[in-house]
Amino acid sequence: MKYGHFDDAAREYVIETPATPLPWINYLGSEDFFSLVSNTGGGYSFYRDAKLRRLTRYRYNDVPGDEGSRSYYLSLMSDSSDSATPIETWSPTFLPTKTALDEYRCRHGLGYTVFEASKHGISSELTMFVPVGANAEINSLTITNTTDKAVTLDVTGVVEWCLWNAVDDSTNFQRNLSTGEVEVERDDERTVLYHKTEFKERRNHYAFFSLNAPTIGFDTSRDAFLGRFNGWDTPQAIAAGKLSDSIAHGWSPIAANRVRLELEPQESKTLVFTLGYIEVPDDQKWESDAHSGIINKKPAHELYARFDTAEKVQQALDQLAEHWNGLLHTYSVESGDERLDRMVNIWHQYQCMVTFNMSRSASYYESGTGRGMGFRDSNQDLLGFVHLIPERARQRILDIASTQLDDGSAWHQYQPLTKRGNADIGGGFNDDPLWLVASVYAYLAETDDASILSEATPFNNEDGSEQPLLEHLRRSVNFILNHRGPHGLPLIGRADWNDCLNLNCFSSTPGESFQTVENNDTGIAESVFIAGMFVLYGSQYADIVERYGTQAGMDAEAISEEVAAIRSAVEEMKQVTESAGWDGEWFIRAFDAYSHPVGSHENDEGQIYIEPQGMCVMAGIGVESGKAQQALSSVKEKLTGEWGTAILAPAYSTYKIELGEISTYPRGYKENGGIFCHNNPWISIANALVGNDDEAFAVYRRNCPAYVEDKSDIRRVEPYVYCQMVAGPESATPGEGKNSWLTGTAAWTFVNVSQYLLGVHPTLEGLSVEPHLPQDFNDLTVTREYRGATYHIAMKRTGERTLTVNGQRLEGHVVPSAMVSEADRSDNDNKVAVEVTF
Amino acid sequence: MKYGHFDDAAREYVIETPATPLPWINYLGSEDFFSLVSNTGGGYSFYRDAKLRRLTRYRYNDVPGDEGSRSYYLSLMSDSSDSATPIETWSPTFLPTKTALDEYRCRHGLGYTVFEASKHGISSELTMFVPVGANAEINSLTITNTTDKAVTLDVTGVVEWCLWNAVDDSTNFQRNLSTGEVEVERDDERTVLYHKTEFKERRNHYAFFSLNAPTIGFDTSRDAFLGRFNGWDTPQAIAAGKLSDSIAHGWSPIAANRVRLELEPQESKTLVFTLGYIEVPDDQKWESDAHSGIINKKPAHELYARFDTAEKVQQALDQLAEHWNGLLHTYSVESGDERLDRMVNIWHQYQCMVTFNMSRSASYYESGTGRGMGFRDSNQDLLGFVHLIPERARQRILDIASTQLDDGSAWHQYQPLTKRGNADIGGGFNDDPLWLVASVYAYLAETDDASILSEATPFNNEDGSEQPLLEHLRRSVNFILNHRGPHGLPLIGRADWNDCLNLNCFSSTPGESFQTVENNDTGIAESVFIAGMFVLYGSQYADIVERYGTQAGMDAEAISEEVAAIRSAVEEMKQVTESAGWDGEWFIRAFDAYSHPVGSHENDEGQIYIEPQGMCVMAGIGVESGKAQQALSSVKEKLTGEWGTAILAPAYSTYKIELGEISTYPRGYKENGGIFCHNNPWISIANALVGNDDEAFAVYRRNCPAYVEDKSDIRRVEPYVYCQMVAGPESATPGEGKNSWLTGTAAWTFVNVSQYLLGVHPTLEGLSVEPHLPQDFNDLTVTREYRGATYHIAMKRTGERTLTVNGQRLEGHVVPSAMVSEADRSDNDNKVAVEVTF
Repeated sequence: MKYGHFDDAAREYVIETPATPLPWINYLGSEDFFSLVSNTGGGYSFYRDAKLRRLTRYRYNDVPGDEGSRSYYLSLMSDSSDSATPIETWSPTFLPTKTALDEYRCRHGLGYTVFEASKHGISSELTMFVPVGANAEINSLTITNTTDKAVTLDVTGVVEWCLWNAVDDSTNFQRNLSTGEVEVERDDERTVLYHKTEFKERRNHYAFFSLNAPTIGFDTSRDAFLGRFNGWDTPQAIAAGKLSDSIAHGWSPIAANRVRLELEPQESKTLVFTLGYIEVPDDQKWESDAHSGIINKKPAHELYARFDTAEKVQQALDQLAEHWNGLLHTYSVESGDERLDRMVNIWHQYQCMVTFNMSRSASYYESGTGRGMGFRDSNQDLLGFVHLIPERARQRILDIASTQLDDGSAWHQYQPLTKRGNADIGGGFNDDPLWLVASVYAYLAETDDASILSEATPFNNEDGSEQPLLEHLRRSVNFILNHRGPHGLPLIGRADWNDCLNLNCFSSTPGESFQTVENNDTGIAESVFIAGMFVLYGSQYADIVERYGTQAGMDAEAISEEVAAIRSAVEEMKQVTESAGWDGEWFIRAFDAYSHPVGSHENDEGQIYIEPQGMCVMAGIGVESGKAQQALSSVKEKLTGEWGTAILAPAYSTYKIELGEISTYPRGYKENGGIFCHNNPWISIANALVGNDDEAFAVYRRNCPAYVEDKSDIRRVEPYVYCQMVAGPESATPGEGKNSWLTGTAAWTFVNVSQYLLGVHPTLEGLSVEPHLPQDFNDLTVTREYRGATYHIAMKRTGERTLTVNGQRLEGHVVPSAMVSEADRSDNDNKVAVEVTF
Repeated sequence: MKYGHFDDAAREYVIETPATPLPWINYLGSEDFFSLVSNTGGGYSFYRDAKLRRLTRYRYNDVPGDEGSRSYYLSLMSDSSDSATPIETWSPTFLPTKTALDEYRCRHGLGYTVFEASKHGISSELTMFVPVGANAEINSLTITNTTDKAVTLDVTGVVEWCLWNAVDDSTNFQRNLSTGEVEVERDDERTVLYHKTEFKERRNHYAFFSLNAPTIGFDTSRDAFLGRFNGWDTPQAIAAGKLSDSIAHGWSPIAANRVRLELEPQESKTLVFTLGYIEVPDDQKWESDAHSGIINKKPAHELYARFDTAEKVQQALDQLAEHWNGLLHTYSVESGDERLDRMVNIWHQYQCMVTFNMSRSASYYESGTGRGMGFRDSNQDLLGFVHLIPERARQRILDIASTQLDDGSAWHQYQPLTKRGNADIGGGFNDDPLWLVASVYAYLAETDDASILSEATPFNNEDGSEQPLLEHLRRSVNFILNHRGPHGLPLIGRADWNDCLNLNCFSSTPGESFQTVENNDTGIAESVFIAGMFVLYGSQYADIVERYGTQAGMDAEAISEEVAAIRSAVEEMKQVTESAGWDGEWFIRAFDAYSHPVGSHENDEGQIYIEPQGMCVMAGIGVESGKAQQALSSVKEKLTGEWGTAILAPAYSTYKIELGEISTYPRGYKENGGIFCHNNPWISIANALVGNDDEAFAVYRRNCPAYVEDKSDIRRVEPYVYCQMVAGPESATPGEGKNSWLTGTAAWTFVNVSQYLLGVHPTLEGLSVEPHLPQDFNDLTVTREYRGATYHIAMKRTGERTLTVNGQRLEGHVVPSAMVSEADRSDNDNKVAVEVTF
């Protein structure tokens, strides 16, 4: 069952009913000011940091759910007098009133969401977006009277303020209920309601919610607006048809503006509600002096004035569209499969942008109050983002590398505001260091910008500890070599990619964190997955040294020694993995603290895990020996079902103290046998690399939102983005998705489909083109902006692999960047014509 | 305006409307299992620890508020067939349905709450309580058909489970939404719905919600019960008249039981819903084995069976009443003033029990997720509790003292589960140590149990550090002497009693904790308040040594040296306070980090503070010189208004970085000029001590809930208990109360009214009787159980102070315990007849 449809021309997903199985959301904002918005208008806004600078209040797991942050009420009034009463009230977003609408449509687009509704012949279009370069969310509401009678319509818009720190806001009531402060500015042109809690003391920021029209009432006290027992569906002020001009003193400040529209038949009017965030210099906080308590509103007036007419709003919308046009120009495909095209050209890349911006902080499942930026997460997110804005990727890499410790290990998370490692979570996740190699390699393959390798980058943010970034990579690789166990495999530490496989934790205390406790660290537990990573990213490190060592200041001898040493270590690790890491029909997952295998036929449960099969084959391990094919065949047979490939099987039915959190979940959910979407692309890539093109694509489509859109009633989450986990075949609810949006699946899927299936793959030398597609794809074109040129790539199935560049036939599948000379570029308007047969 | 009335005979407050200004709550439970319940049925339950072992879910500051933890739905059905539909549904607690009731009454009693309601001629009585000695909340519902027709009534009871850790439950959704697990047990007698989330792994506990009747349906999935957009007011299952027997897999498990009653005219039936908590030994967790996943239900069956009939429930209620009879027997008064009697005999003591049990953890304002037990808080709470159950007070004292550091300082908080100091909050609150002297003195004055002083008590819970408790007191006192500033006054440290007066913090970073940051600790800032404390509690320490030193193993010389040294230090501090600490018309509050006075006429704002006036006069400072009277006169003139005595004046209009949090609040709220109820009794005691009996009582009654009951529309919080703060005269909402129930006001008020106004005051030597009452009290009796005897105290106003004990006229006002010999006790049935004139 579907609840909407893709509108590819508009780059929108159009939701046709408010009653989606779960709220289906979108993200607004691309720089500092961000908002989440659901298909019924729920969500919240924050400035930079979802925990410390939350602007509007949102209650996770609430009953009723998804209400209260921004609420709009359209009240058809009995007449136009002062004593008019509401005939009926509805919301243009359906919630919170829940009044049945005659028409409803929610269009989630790139950085904006539009709600179209109609009721009683009154149609509305409510557009929400964050303009490029503005710290504001604009809610532009156009109302049209499609009846043949004049009507009086009262419009009320409301936001509920969060008292800045989202954690304190929801816990520290003995303080919070006394701190709320507001100001009101109201004239014949507009009403601006200011939220200035704690501005008196240490804050230099406030927020406002304005309306560009004269209002007939406002409220800033939530209790005054809602009444004693009412929710956002039935505020007493809305029922009464009258706001009370309340001033909040503590408790819960809100901003509610009410305006009356008199609409002639066929008349349209547009209102602009602006949610703005303002910072002022410390010496300009006040209108006159601090004792007055009157805030300096000049910057608010300036921000307000930028969007105070429908025309200015339209210009800002056009600018936002231009912004996205520019970004999505970098990679596009015409494949003949509209589902593939829409995901590659729009939604995969859009989700990559969101994961890059949000990391794992703020979604409808991540509360925005817990995690910082993950070392592992952010490096991987970057793989799917680097082509969009390489400059931001460059900065992110340097931020991440600056939190690395000088032994090559890493803090597992760092805080985006301070950019410092998070000591509460600590380190010891032994896969972390190698992901830095992955992201730097991807950056170099995209840009050829060797200068990043020479950037002086500190360890643990300590002044004086700076070393070139290349040295960070060297330490990353050597950290693995220096931490190996009894089989010669890398030690797993607290966990590797799978945070829930905790082989040294041995926790028996409820609530104890599996990720930060080590009760039994014997230095024995090993990870076959990290072994695969080492082979893959160790090789990439050697490639980097080989190609850029000179530019990074190494002499030829040093380069050659380093490369030889690493390649030899890689070869050794490959052999160890194929021997000690091989179970017979698949790769073992790990060895536990007793050196017993995990993910082996010897185990009763958890006999096979997905991660080492994907990573080892991606690293090329077992390709020659046939073990790669054998492992992938086992994955298909034992882990793969209708909804994708599960993380392990059989799921654990009891808690295994020697394995940790993985065995805590009910069977078939999360790491205990769920389909953890993140590693499905690894299996797809692995299949592509060994030539299983049909299965490679089948893995992609089983798990790809657009391809399972018609099962949205089962999958439940948004059909335009990935979720972290789909309940596995051993669960009670197979196919049920959870934790949509903020998942490494976004980056890895785009890497997979763009670089391995469509096969347009940046390398250090240039763009590689080598498609791996099933039989029904025969004729495709890909456009790729790369290193300053635009590659027009025509792909045709002929059964033979050939590569022709600007008419010249080349060996292999790489278009050397060197070949795309300055001359070529200017001659051809920066265009490179590539023809590929396969 | 009132919203109910006191029923003193029943020891109840009877609320007559659901529409109280705020939820008015009660506490159930007295040992390990606790519940909060509001006058509309809201609240939640926990086992021992409101943060780590929360049983049912509660959303603070929710919209709509106060719903969802336990919901009852009575549905009058169209007929008795399987396809019957609801005619109307209401809640016997008004919420969550909000259906108007024909009758409504909520009776909050001692450890129980009863809801009486009627609708459509169906009357209901719903009694909620936690039985003595059981880990369960019983909800007993009696339904009576008062009409002359048979009716079919469906009754549905629902609780929403919290996933144990209240913090994780409200933040960690990426895990939580996949962990929920339930079991269902249903037969012809009953339905038991089990909540067993995480039982599979490290937990050895589960909960259940049962009904002692055959059910016609259940739900364990909240989504199935509520539907996509519905709140607790209108669950889809209730509207449909049919539950769906849903099994929760992750998301949000609930327990909903539905039963059908066929009621003849005038027929009554009683249903018992039980919310039970069960722990099982690790080796008995499962019915058969862990792989089955079926929990061992035997202990649940046993708990269930204890309350599975109306008769058993009535017995448990009787036992609860007995329990409270026994406790409240210890102190009672008949004064002729029903408001005084009800507060002293019932509500003050009840609130003291609740604050002793809860500290500051779980109320409708304290979210139960933050603070542990306060060193300062718990010592003070004990002052009002020690007479009720001295054995528990004794254990609490030893727990608190064990967290003291070996230099005499203290962790500011400790965790009730681990009983260890909380390093996140740290120490350095320099008033903390002296409160230990206060509580030990109170314990000794109550019990004469010198053995506590010899208890080997560790410092910072470290094995091997044990010293007798008396040594802890010595270090407490010496800590103050060893930390004095330029004037010879005690250094204030991070703060003293007023957590918000932060003289060394100097914070300019938003969100930074004023209590844990020291940016400018120059060791200069001094507290006149602690000076007063030192004089008071230093003297008490000397009294303790003098009286019990020998029993505690000191020789006569050591005793005499120690007592002389302390009394000399006390005298010195008294003099310093009267000189350096005196501003001219009142005591200065403190000296800041620049040695500038705080709370002085030299200041523009914050010229006078309440705390030093109360504490210094209680300590006897300035009594002879007239400064005490002068200070109290200034308090009356400058701080006292209709609603009580404000904490300071004038309130601060701007942030003062050198003063800290106190200046962050809006004017007139909290520590910035609010009426902080906690220190009003100090002013009352101080007035009593200097003979201002009228004003002493006036201070008590201005702030006393029962005396301002008729202004409940302004005060808003419960009229039967104190709140932390009433908005001050400089606020926008004078008289508005906040943060009811968990406040040190409870203990201090009971100390004030019982020991100083009524004047029945335990001392080390025996019971002192010296009333200080205004002119309209002339003839009173107090009954006091004390050191094994029952004192019947008759007080009469004659204008002359006399004391007669068992017919014998004594000098002074103390009845020496030695005089109440064993013989007297047995002769008089343990009764002591005391006659006092005043």
